[in-house]
Amino acid sequence: MSVQEDMLRCAKAAQQASRVMATLSSKIKNELLVKMAEGLTNAQRELQQENAVDLQRAQENGLTEAMIDRLRLTPERITAMADGLREVAALPDPVGEVTGMWLRPNGIRVGRQRIPLGVIGIIYESRPNVTADAAGLCLKSGNAVILRGGSEALYSNRAIGKILQQSLEDMNLPSEALQVITTSDRQAVTELLKLEEQIDLIIPRGGEGLIRFVAENSRIPVIKHYKGVCHTYVDRGADLAMAEQICMNAKVQRPGVCNAMETLLVHRDIAADFLPRITQLMIAAGVELRGCERARALCPEMLPASEEDWFAEYLDLILAVRVVDSYEQARDHIQRYGSLHTEVIVTNDYRCSQQFLREINSSVVMVNASSRFSDGNQLGLGAEIGISTTKLHSFGPMGLEDLTTRKFVVLGEGQVRA
Amino acid sequence: MSVQEDMLRCAKAAQQASRVMATLSSKIKNELLVKMAEGLTNAQRELQQENAVDLQRAQENGLTEAMIDRLRLTPERITAMADGLREVAALPDPVGEVTGMWLRPNGIRVGRQRIPLGVIGIIYESRPNVTADAAGLCLKSGNAVILRGGSEALYSNRAIGKILQQSLEDMNLPSEALQVITTSDRQAVTELLKLEEQIDLIIPRGGEGLIRFVAENSRIPVIKHYKGVCHTYVDRGADLAMAEQICMNAKVQRPGVCNAMETLLVHRDIAADFLPRITQLMIAAGVELRGCERARALCPEMLPASEEDWFAEYLDLILAVRVVDSYEQARDHIQRYGSLHTEVIVTNDYRCSQQFLREINSSVVMVNASSRFSDGNQLGLGAEIGISTTKLHSFGPMGLEDLTTRKFVVLGEGQVRA
Repeated sequence: MSVQEDMLRCAKAAQQASRVMATLSSKIKNELLVKMAEGLTNAQRELQQENAVDLQRAQENGLTEAMIDRLRLTPERITAMADGLREVAALPDPVGEVTGMWLRPNGIRVGRQRIPLGVIGIIYESRPNVTADAAGLCLKSGNAVILRGGSEALYSNRAIGKILQQSLEDMNLPSEALQVITTSDRQAVTELLKLEEQIDLIIPRGGEGLIRFVAENSRIPVIKHYKGVCHTYVDRGADLAMAEQICMNAKVQRPGVCNAMETLLVHRDIAADFLPRITQLMIAAGVELRGCERARALCPEMLPASEEDWFAEYLDLILAVRVVDSYEQARDHIQRYGSLHTEVIVTNDYRCSQQFLREINSSVVMVNASSRFSDGNQLGLGAEIGISTTKLHSFGPMGLEDLTTRKFVVLGEGQVRA
Repeated sequence: MSVQEDMLRCAKAAQQASRVMATLSSKIKNELLVKMAEGLTNAQRELQQENAVDLQRAQENGLTEAMIDRLRLTPERITAMADGLREVAALPDPVGEVTGMWLRPNGIRVGRQRIPLGVIGIIYESRPNVTADAAGLCLKSGNAVILRGGSEALYSNRAIGKILQQSLEDMNLPSEALQVITTSDRQAVTELLKLEEQIDLIIPRGGEGLIRFVAENSRIPVIKHYKGVCHTYVDRGADLAMAEQICMNAKVQRPGVCNAMETLLVHRDIAADFLPRITQLMIAAGVELRGCERARALCPEMLPASEEDWFAEYLDLILAVRVVDSYEQARDHIQRYGSLHTEVIVTNDYRCSQQFLREINSSVVMVNASSRFSDGNQLGLGAEIGISTTKLHSFGPMGLEDLTTRKFVVLGEGQVRA
């Protein structure tokens, strides 16, 4: 069977299975996820054996220690995967909710009801825990899922998939509701991305290269997130002690993630007070600062920032710093250089806070809080399947509800159109 | 300037303008739409002059009388366009609505607020009224819009666009918020579809060929609707007089539209009662019937249906008819041959009605009502920008709300992440 035929067969089976999954009660779906969690815990030895093959291959292929560490399944990480599934089981089920129902003048009642999307394809890089996390969220929301992880984690992903599928079979549910693509042939992804009749959504998770490849080759809608160039704007009306705490947290608490601050904008009226203080703290925390000319005039420790620095997602202990004349200049900077991810204003000026909330249309806008809260768990979505920085369907951190859509339901008593 | 440069310039100007439009109050937007309506009414003579050029060219190019009629701007049609804009002005503004706000354990408040999508591209065929209708909906929802109509309506669309732009200028709003692409070069569309950095959504309106071309060539998300193969299933528990009325309305009231019934499924237990009655009524209304073998055994007037008939969107006085053994067989038929548009069950059996509503995940599912209600106005959305039969972002008839997305708003008091 060719890769093309193989992917089509896989997607058709997923579509069939999705019709069964769509009608399951929350009770059954929750039981399934708990059973999957137990399956992972019970198979710890088997999982570690398969993982050892991936680790061995990774070493032979000369992967970096950081990459090998991401690949490793320790007992703690297996427990964390299982706990993740139990947490998703405990979340409210979005499917079936009627989000509104109204009466038309002719007596028909019209409502909108949440339904699963159908079949979701997840294309991801080497962390094997994504296999269980993404599967849990997709199944809980009544979807079927096709998982294609990085070839480095092939043995681990296959083993996790087998255990999760066993739980489906044990409950007499179609095992095709969860399929792990185990061919290392890269053409498998290209073929999957063409199957718009069978697959309803593709979510790529990984580096910008992977995401661009998927976005450019997919006929299926893609929810994507290229990068997070998050700004913090410290207004002249800010509490500077609060601004310090928020900026330090946003930059150094975990610099390698997409909701870390990359650019600090400071109002000129407070720059002479604030910049030297924050500069000392940042430097003490190991942060390299790259400032505009006015910032450097106040803090000569900063390196000069170039135009590319304003666009940069460093994902590292580096921060671009710019002094602005006004709120408006901060806004224009964010609109020009931002990535629509997360922007923060630190201010005590009510009018300015409202203007920021109204005028900045990034996926998350915050007043007086650290950008590090821009995450599905922190915002209260319960779990996160990804972050969207494009506006269609979902914008910002995505939870279970984002894996559903709504259909119209019409209840009549024989009405016809005049 | 090349077409490529020209489209990029147009899209960038639209993006700039969209930022202004996004922050306008409902009052200003409503004034704008009313002013546009007045502009169209006042320019009736000018519009008809420009339209006459299109009509002349259409005749020279040998367009059919039906196509020429769709192109024609009569005083009544100009009034209807203006009335349409006034109706949209009177609708509630979706922008700014906070659809929920909750408190997290650390004290941050998290809400979701509706915002415009940004820039919307509408690619449509020759009806010039779409220019005003689509512009009204996009502007009311705070977006900028780029309109590319069929080349047959070039002069009419340009004239309408000029009048609408004048209203923007009269109110000191950026005229680039509404742009009509007037080059007849087809490459303009191909170039527009690449501008994913500037344009947030493409809505194609027209025949299946246009929609497939747009879907296959766009890097920008597309909301699409290929066809409507709408089913009516008459259950054994149906009131047959009601079923007759619903079926006749769904098939003959306006057969050329996407929410007309194309396939009738009848439960075998009532087939002998119902099929001869409906067959007589349909034939009297000029409908050609194409039945399965069991249907033809009861009604020999029917022609034999082939496999293609079950997939067909006739858009004409033709109806495919099939006798099914059970609700389950009806459901399986709909899932196999349907287009996810609109499906109707006629029944008096409560359990069966609930099963249909739960198991059929087309964009509109109805009990005891005509499929002809599947339309934004009839369902109470106030106005319709299109119908989506793909599940991402919107599913089914789309109104103003579907031209928006939601951002997260976070209100803190200095919280940082632990």
